[in-house]
Amino acid sequence: MTEPVDVRSLRIGILGGTGEQGRGLARRFAKAGHPIVLGSRDAERALAVAAELAGGRRPLLITGASNADAASADVVIVAVPYDGHRELLVSLASDLAGKIVIDCVNPMLFEKGRPSMIEVPEGSAAQEAAAVLPESRVVSAFHDVSAKLLLGSKVSVPTDVLVCGDDADARTLVCALAGRIRGMRGVDVGPLRLSSVLESLTMVLIGVNKRYKTHAGVRITGV
Amino acid sequence: MTEPVDVRSLRIGILGGTGEQGRGLARRFAKAGHPIVLGSRDAERALAVAAELAGGRRPLLITGASNADAASADVVIVAVPYDGHRELLVSLASDLAGKIVIDCVNPMLFEKGRPSMIEVPEGSAAQEAAAVLPESRVVSAFHDVSAKLLLGSKVSVPTDVLVCGDDADARTLVCALAGRIRGMRGVDVGPLRLSSVLESLTMVLIGVNKRYKTHAGVRITGV
Repeated sequence: MTEPVDVRSLRIGILGGTGEQGRGLARRFAKAGHPIVLGSRDAERALAVAAELAGGRRPLLITGASNADAASADVVIVAVPYDGHRELLVSLASDLAGKIVIDCVNPMLFEKGRPSMIEVPEGSAAQEAAAVLPESRVVSAFHDVSAKLLLGSKVSVPTDVLVCGDDADARTLVCALAGRIRGMRGVDVGPLRLSSVLESLTMVLIGVNKRYKTHAGVRITGV
Repeated sequence: MTEPVDVRSLRIGILGGTGEQGRGLARRFAKAGHPIVLGSRDAERALAVAAELAGGRRPLLITGASNADAASADVVIVAVPYDGHRELLVSLASDLAGKIVIDCVNPMLFEKGRPSMIEVPEGSAAQEAAAVLPESRVVSAFHDVSAKLLLGSKVSVPTDVLVCGDDADARTLVCALAGRIRGMRGVDVGPLRLSSVLESLTMVLIGVNKRYKTHAGVRITGV
């Protein structure tokens, strides 16, 4: 077994941090005590969004920056829209070398409100990330977490975060990190090739949300 | 909203009912009070397996038959190995016309213990079923239910059954049917094209089983 990982002090960078998923994760991780660097193509915008998220009854440690600056954090979450995913990561490959990079991008397209998956040559967005970041430890996670719940007012986000990747220690760290958000639990599902399932599971959750007027999440039973 | 469906008296046929998934579903639905017709290519074998499942402290209404005879039940579950799936359904198309057909087949291949998905031209096993059974109402369900749990000794199977299909009433019926098994709940996720996700989700559950030495299931939160 791997040693328990102490992830409590990790500084987290979020590429594309001004989007819904990025803001939601920033807010929840900051509430858990992590310093956050919110990255954006537009650093001014990142600063404004960070200030908005950080202010409140209990100020949070969220700062805004360029994506390149966010990439200098201890652990980096990729939360950009799929369009531009590959190009951004190619441009940051040297900044991200040696780091754990958590890809939570869903390569999806909405046509008339109907979602469909965009075919990624590598099999999934996370596998694409691994292909263009050969010196990073890419982990796929947080696909199944509703941005609405992350940004909502409930104290707890009762959902499991399915985690896959080809580096077992990195998976363990990301599972521990997921567990920092109240209500959340990381579940290690195995190798990175499973990311296509995690990414497309979002389509199922969207289907459930539509039918049950909810913000659905996933729990794995038996674990 | 659709009227609540009374599914309590439905007779359930199971094609490929002698396999693990088929036996497990037969046992649980019989315990819930449904008469079951277990089908097999080999009716003799179906009779033997049915007798074995039906016997016990409280005898169950499980009989064995050919697949064609099982196809005459009120609702028919397809639980054959993927190899032979298309041919069997083509051969039973007229028997299955007008019926709700529940496909729970996962088109998977194991090489050296490592699972991978078999590419199905229609997109998924259930969509293949729909293509060859144009006069049936095909619903995809029970992919995410562990046969080990179904066959195990626990009274309750605490898991959600993700259900998709293009006929809303048929989905509702199958959700109600899933709810007949103690601990289980059907969750309507939407159109049949989502079946590829439900089928490949099994790969994730296998990954979890391997890592946590368990028989994992899925719960949808927020529903």
